[in-house]
Amino acid sequence: MQYIAFIRSPFLEKFGVPRQSGLAEHVVSRIVFTPAFSHPDFIRGIEQFSHLWIIWGFHRNHRDVERSQHATVRPPRLGGNQRLGVFATRSPFRPNELGLSAVRLLGVEADGSLSIGGADMADGTPVYDIKPYLPYADAVSSAQAGFAEGKPAPSLHVLWQDGLKEKLTMEQALALEEILAQDPRPAYHDTPDRIYHLCFAPYEVDFRVEDTKLHILRVKRRA
Amino acid sequence: MQYIAFIRSPFLEKFGVPRQSGLAEHVVSRIVFTPAFSHPDFIRGIEQFSHLWIIWGFHRNHRDVERSQHATVRPPRLGGNQRLGVFATRSPFRPNELGLSAVRLLGVEADGSLSIGGADMADGTPVYDIKPYLPYADAVSSAQAGFAEGKPAPSLHVLWQDGLKEKLTMEQALALEEILAQDPRPAYHDTPDRIYHLCFAPYEVDFRVEDTKLHILRVKRRA
Repeated sequence: MQYIAFIRSPFLEKFGVPRQSGLAEHVVSRIVFTPAFSHPDFIRGIEQFSHLWIIWGFHRNHRDVERSQHATVRPPRLGGNQRLGVFATRSPFRPNELGLSAVRLLGVEADGSLSIGGADMADGTPVYDIKPYLPYADAVSSAQAGFAEGKPAPSLHVLWQDGLKEKLTMEQALALEEILAQDPRPAYHDTPDRIYHLCFAPYEVDFRVEDTKLHILRVKRRA
Repeated sequence: MQYIAFIRSPFLEKFGVPRQSGLAEHVVSRIVFTPAFSHPDFIRGIEQFSHLWIIWGFHRNHRDVERSQHATVRPPRLGGNQRLGVFATRSPFRPNELGLSAVRLLGVEADGSLSIGGADMADGTPVYDIKPYLPYADAVSSAQAGFAEGKPAPSLHVLWQDGLKEKLTMEQALALEEILAQDPRPAYHDTPDRIYHLCFAPYEVDFRVEDTKLHILRVKRRA
């Protein structure tokens, strides 16, 4: 297995990465090909597809190889206290550590990279394959999915302190609200005094959560 | 990368394997776990999902490593005479030789294997990962797909010689008709005299094609 590309995304850290693709549609990332796969021939005709599949590696797990060997995991959507088989979940802690995401193709950039929307990948994520999304084979809208049936609803109201929202472009502000409204905190964190720190390039964002309100306290451009 | 399972399917040879998952819904295959992943814990809870993603390897390509290094391929749906970038197609000849299929989960068997419907994999295909299909993230029914937009329509009428259809179960006969109606012949084969031989376990099937009629000439149980 060789990397064919890497992801450039606003998530320089794991904290804040959406739990599935499509949950934060306004997040814009890029697929940057490695030198061996950067010839434009490799993507000839790709612009006729609105969506792509990315098969990628959960590289941020590498310090937790042991955890990826467990047969069961505790999905956050079940409150973190019920164990399911790893092949019955989309957990990142899994054999071969492969990720799978359907993303929107926004365009082919002048440098040959691909702009994509709605990705759930951290910056630096290695990519193993890119395939066009074929609705007739891939879109099974009648599929039943038990505990993971519906789209997780946003659970927090995002409130900005005066003057902060204007620091971002409209697209960035929308993306940040999508991410924060889904509550990026680990399960069972409910400490209203705690200030959380999210890296959303090129910004660093401080916030606090009280009941269902998320207060953005500070937005600072990274040095 | 380690194999977590292997596919058992009626396609003992590459000839006849459907070109995408879901094109031959009545084809029944099995996912048989390797000893390291055969503990039932690995699939605990999987029965609540109607569909699964399989990430697998195009192992039948191994003699054609060179062809998998090309930047472009000629998709059969474009008649085989137009080149597209490999990442704009689902061609099996691709870097890392990864396949991706959405299949129907029919059930968990007593031996711990999974019965699946509609798979497009040859017998012996190695499996790298199994994930539940999540409609809210994976089913993009509005996706546009250029040259591969619609489901390929069956192009042949399948006609059985007297007494042959009754040799198969009803399910097998339906599956075989689905496979043959989509014309498994390589592009540009149009030789009405030629007799083609399809291995559809546990049967061997001889057929001939004339215009849009496919005649099943012989159905023989494998020794």
